[in-house]
Amino acid sequence: MNSQTHRQWLVADRPIGRELRAGDFHLVETPVVQPSHGEVLVETLYLAFDPAQKSWMENVANYRDPVALGSMMPGRGVGRVLASRHPDLAAGDLVHGETGWQERPLMQGAGLAKVAQGVPPTAVLSVLGTTGKTAYLGLTHVGKPKPGDTVVISGAAGATGSVVGQIAKLAGCRVIGIAGGTQKCAWLTDELGFDGAIDYKAEKIRARLRELCPGGIDVMWDNVGGDILNDCLARLAVGARVVICGGISRYNFDARNPEQMPPGPRNYFNVVFTGATIQGFLMNHYERDYPIAEARLLAWVREGRLKYKEDIREGFENAPAALMGLFAGGNFGKQLLKVAN
Amino acid sequence: MNSQTHRQWLVADRPIGRELRAGDFHLVETPVVQPSHGEVLVETLYLAFDPAQKSWMENVANYRDPVALGSMMPGRGVGRVLASRHPDLAAGDLVHGETGWQERPLMQGAGLAKVAQGVPPTAVLSVLGTTGKTAYLGLTHVGKPKPGDTVVISGAAGATGSVVGQIAKLAGCRVIGIAGGTQKCAWLTDELGFDGAIDYKAEKIRARLRELCPGGIDVMWDNVGGDILNDCLARLAVGARVVICGGISRYNFDARNPEQMPPGPRNYFNVVFTGATIQGFLMNHYERDYPIAEARLLAWVREGRLKYKEDIREGFENAPAALMGLFAGGNFGKQLLKVAN
Repeated sequence: MNSQTHRQWLVADRPIGRELRAGDFHLVETPVVQPSHGEVLVETLYLAFDPAQKSWMENVANYRDPVALGSMMPGRGVGRVLASRHPDLAAGDLVHGETGWQERPLMQGAGLAKVAQGVPPTAVLSVLGTTGKTAYLGLTHVGKPKPGDTVVISGAAGATGSVVGQIAKLAGCRVIGIAGGTQKCAWLTDELGFDGAIDYKAEKIRARLRELCPGGIDVMWDNVGGDILNDCLARLAVGARVVICGGISRYNFDARNPEQMPPGPRNYFNVVFTGATIQGFLMNHYERDYPIAEARLLAWVREGRLKYKEDIREGFENAPAALMGLFAGGNFGKQLLKVAN
Repeated sequence: MNSQTHRQWLVADRPIGRELRAGDFHLVETPVVQPSHGEVLVETLYLAFDPAQKSWMENVANYRDPVALGSMMPGRGVGRVLASRHPDLAAGDLVHGETGWQERPLMQGAGLAKVAQGVPPTAVLSVLGTTGKTAYLGLTHVGKPKPGDTVVISGAAGATGSVVGQIAKLAGCRVIGIAGGTQKCAWLTDELGFDGAIDYKAEKIRARLRELCPGGIDVMWDNVGGDILNDCLARLAVGARVVICGGISRYNFDARNPEQMPPGPRNYFNVVFTGATIQGFLMNHYERDYPIAEARLLAWVREGRLKYKEDIREGFENAPAALMGLFAGGNFGKQLLKVAN
């Protein structure tokens, strides 16, 4: 890359009803544009990846503006200010925001936030970013944990689930995580202090839930859907709260064609006998609480009470592969991509 | 019947995974027992019927004591006191309670309540009974209607749904009912003041919901499950509340064998984009609010602001047929059985 051009990943096709593939993305070189009044030229250092980005490409996420084919792939990143015409930002500042998948974004300064002091800059893309805020806001506003509650989390070793579990521990709960593989399960119990873990690849979930949740599940946090959600619904305690945060088992189906979507959880009717609540969580609905979430997450990270894991790949050219890897469960920790030093 | 014996219907078999049939019930004659201290001998005048009674026979309703095969069929009734050894009740009083399916129940006086003045005695089994209280408590505590909300009700011409809709109108909502047949739909709009009705036997529910709920559904009250619930979930407004009260489409499946239950609603994931809540309602969880519900329902009935319909069959020997008829949708109004004058 020279100083006159930079690279961008564009959206070339919509992955509707199928897995992502390399041909859904298209790499271009484009001129670097110097900032006008209020604008900032940034050098991207890290990009963050989330399964929801696939739904953005499909245009089924009604909480975002549509993504046009041929336009830049959206996403969040951390960068360093190269040149600024915004009064609050200066060359050298570390910032984060909706950079998109590009090396030298030209951004409105008002859309950028400075990276917090005292934590690694990548933390604003993981534990302090969308996933951390989702965990804090979803658990406190929808899950409403009480001390002594039993909390079960699917996708528990993921970037959101692992933070949900640790905050539930801070709230005085018993926490059981469901994750794939002995390494992830050991991390939950040995490093993060979970009270139990279920390896869905090797264990029978229903039988293990009976053992680990003898009094039922008070809070269920679901990132997965499918059989795991259904098995948990069978063990709800009276008054349980089920937080639907994600559904990774559903993301390769065509959401525009409801008949082709996988069935819902047949045990949904147990909410009648338990008076339980199933509620969806979308972070955008809680925007006014972002500052509270960020302040609390930052304090816990600085105090060492909240641990997090990042899975950092390298090279701007690997952005599509980093996103695709999320759907294969290959990452362990928040998926990031290092783009520059 | 002579004065020395009376008849009881016993549970002869469990209708698990199938429809009810006549052989599930067994009619016996048994001696009339005179009351001891605190007891009351009652003559049953009317019995009330509810789809949930099938699940009691299956022993899958975890909110009730198990029903033993060969024991009396449980249910609620209105009766006249024949002889009392309870200080608050005297011969001739009209009372209601858990009489079971029998002609001359011997009951604890403490388990009986007097029939309210100024309304027909059957009202305590319908609009003032389980169905009315379910409607009031479920709508106010779980549905949480706000003025201007659009409320959609499945099974809207049923004993519960029709009361839900009228209370939602009192709360300032737009109310759309889903029911089977032009007669029931006309009753909803012409007699009860619903703003619209969808005949699920003749109309396309999804298309009609689009027409009738252009701003989405704020409160959905579900008595049915299946496709009707699924279609409504596709049209939820942000922050919607879905009250799961019943699932008549599910009651002939074997709830002990989850693999054989029908699938859940595939559109459940829309709760994420809307932040909506799906919550079950079981009246037993709201016992401390029964007096409030009964007082308000009674006032509205007396003032003529709450209309109700009863479908009254006759003859104690027809109790099984009255219950079975609920699952064929044959009744129009709360199903009651007149047992004596």
